[in-house]
Amino acid sequence: MVINLDVTLRDGGYRNNFDFPLDYARHHVRESVAAGIEWIEIGYRNGSFKPRPGIGRTGLGADDYIRALAEVVPPEHLCMIVHPKNITEDDLPRMYEAGARMVRFCLPSGAPEAGLALLARAVDLGFTTTVNITRVSQLDGRRLAELAAMSGDSGADVVYLADSNGSMLPREVSRLVTLVRSVTDAAIGLHAHNNLGLALANAIAAVEAGATWIDSSVLGMGKGPGNLVTEQWLAYLGRGGRTEGHDLGRILALAHRMEGEFAEAAPSLPLPDLVLGHFDLSVEERAKLPQGRISDAFSAARELTATGAR
Amino acid sequence: MVINLDVTLRDGGYRNNFDFPLDYARHHVRESVAAGIEWIEIGYRNGSFKPRPGIGRTGLGADDYIRALAEVVPPEHLCMIVHPKNITEDDLPRMYEAGARMVRFCLPSGAPEAGLALLARAVDLGFTTTVNITRVSQLDGRRLAELAAMSGDSGADVVYLADSNGSMLPREVSRLVTLVRSVTDAAIGLHAHNNLGLALANAIAAVEAGATWIDSSVLGMGKGPGNLVTEQWLAYLGRGGRTEGHDLGRILALAHRMEGEFAEAAPSLPLPDLVLGHFDLSVEERAKLPQGRISDAFSAARELTATGAR
Repeated sequence: MVINLDVTLRDGGYRNNFDFPLDYARHHVRESVAAGIEWIEIGYRNGSFKPRPGIGRTGLGADDYIRALAEVVPPEHLCMIVHPKNITEDDLPRMYEAGARMVRFCLPSGAPEAGLALLARAVDLGFTTTVNITRVSQLDGRRLAELAAMSGDSGADVVYLADSNGSMLPREVSRLVTLVRSVTDAAIGLHAHNNLGLALANAIAAVEAGATWIDSSVLGMGKGPGNLVTEQWLAYLGRGGRTEGHDLGRILALAHRMEGEFAEAAPSLPLPDLVLGHFDLSVEERAKLPQGRISDAFSAARELTATGAR
Repeated sequence: MVINLDVTLRDGGYRNNFDFPLDYARHHVRESVAAGIEWIEIGYRNGSFKPRPGIGRTGLGADDYIRALAEVVPPEHLCMIVHPKNITEDDLPRMYEAGARMVRFCLPSGAPEAGLALLARAVDLGFTTTVNITRVSQLDGRRLAELAAMSGDSGADVVYLADSNGSMLPREVSRLVTLVRSVTDAAIGLHAHNNLGLALANAIAAVEAGATWIDSSVLGMGKGPGNLVTEQWLAYLGRGGRTEGHDLGRILALAHRMEGEFAEAAPSLPLPDLVLGHFDLSVEERAKLPQGRISDAFSAARELTATGAR
């Protein structure tokens, strides 16, 4: 069982200065949850790592923003990410009261103690918690093991390896997942970036090595060249018979809207071709798919498969 | 040791009706070979599977076209692909005389005999040969084993699995490579399409299962959503210390030119981000890379790495 966490509104914010319209954010959260994504990371609390001028709502994560999203989905789906230096203990109960149920902590690898104390406080408040260990490709293995063990000891539910530079290979991901599993009982997650086009291969390697939490974003929208592409990841799970209740057609519709609405959302591979691959249909069948709504193309492709086009 | 085969001018031709300008084709072949790609597939002989009106030079593969490319690279780098129904025995010595040194045969899986007879003739003439088994995702395992065995018996140097629908998962690629290896002594190759974003993961799986020939195209330019992306594949090999004499910077420069010159060449992930990933540099270093020539950015990134930016 993989637990999927959507980072579009947060990591994608690096592309548009965290300026997602509230209407879109509500739509995104509703559709993602309806499609079976377990957790939606809706933003930073009080800013990202470095101060940025004019930062938008998904970079500030104010109470009223959290509340506006908590109106459209059931509880237990909304999470916030924090740099501990940006928050105080007071932020935690306020985020919980507004409707967030997970907090993710980006810890400075040199001095994680203050952040871990906040994490322990979040655990007490009832939050699900993750520790995100960033730039793992540049971290000494012994330090990584220490940070992971300390995180688990502080009550983190999940320890995330973040391939911030997008430079890791699948075999390195396997090795680090195995290392971290051996020092903590926390679940292991992967946050992949796609610099080398390896985000999908790395996510597969992570899960095969025992990771159970995977971050992704719609169209891969995220910092730099972006993250693991949600629709590709769900298609991979689906091709392998691991649909786990996901609605790929619904996520494709969300991706299609994003392509049209956000200039910063660089299109990934063409969505109709993903539909063909998902149903093992040849490129010649593409002309038979309706134009326009990608969810109609998805339904038509499923129909073609059922009627023996392959 | 992986033997790399570039399919840009052939499979990419599906995007522009095989109408690459001769100047570009000569540049492409020269730069690819200079960057260490072993074989360049320069086109179909006498048309692709189905007749297409107004098909350009890389879809016809005439003698003078082959000859024009053979002027710019050493022997033993140029290959042609054929549908046996489109050629006669006479085509083989003419292609050889013009400068091609490999012929790849797309065989109809139901009746491969006539094609295999032509293949045996090509072997006699001194060609390196491959059999490309298309749509392997839809082929019965027993038939695949038969075709592979017959191909090896007819003298094929390489049996290629073509994931024409781009629907295969890494574990399926592993299984089929293992199957085919067990029935023939021919080398095994993979021709991947990227419908699900899995071309790179599948190429990795193929090589780990024992395949030694990998097709790719610059920017992934190819039928449908395209092929394995050459620059991502070489970056993968390079990150793993398997540079094998490849010049990634040179391929990136070629990709950069293609992005600018061909409207049909959908950009892959941004090339400067690939450079960062290749050198394990953070996204913050991107501002330090020179704009313009990507090969300058590549050199600058190498310099940053050497001076300890990571």
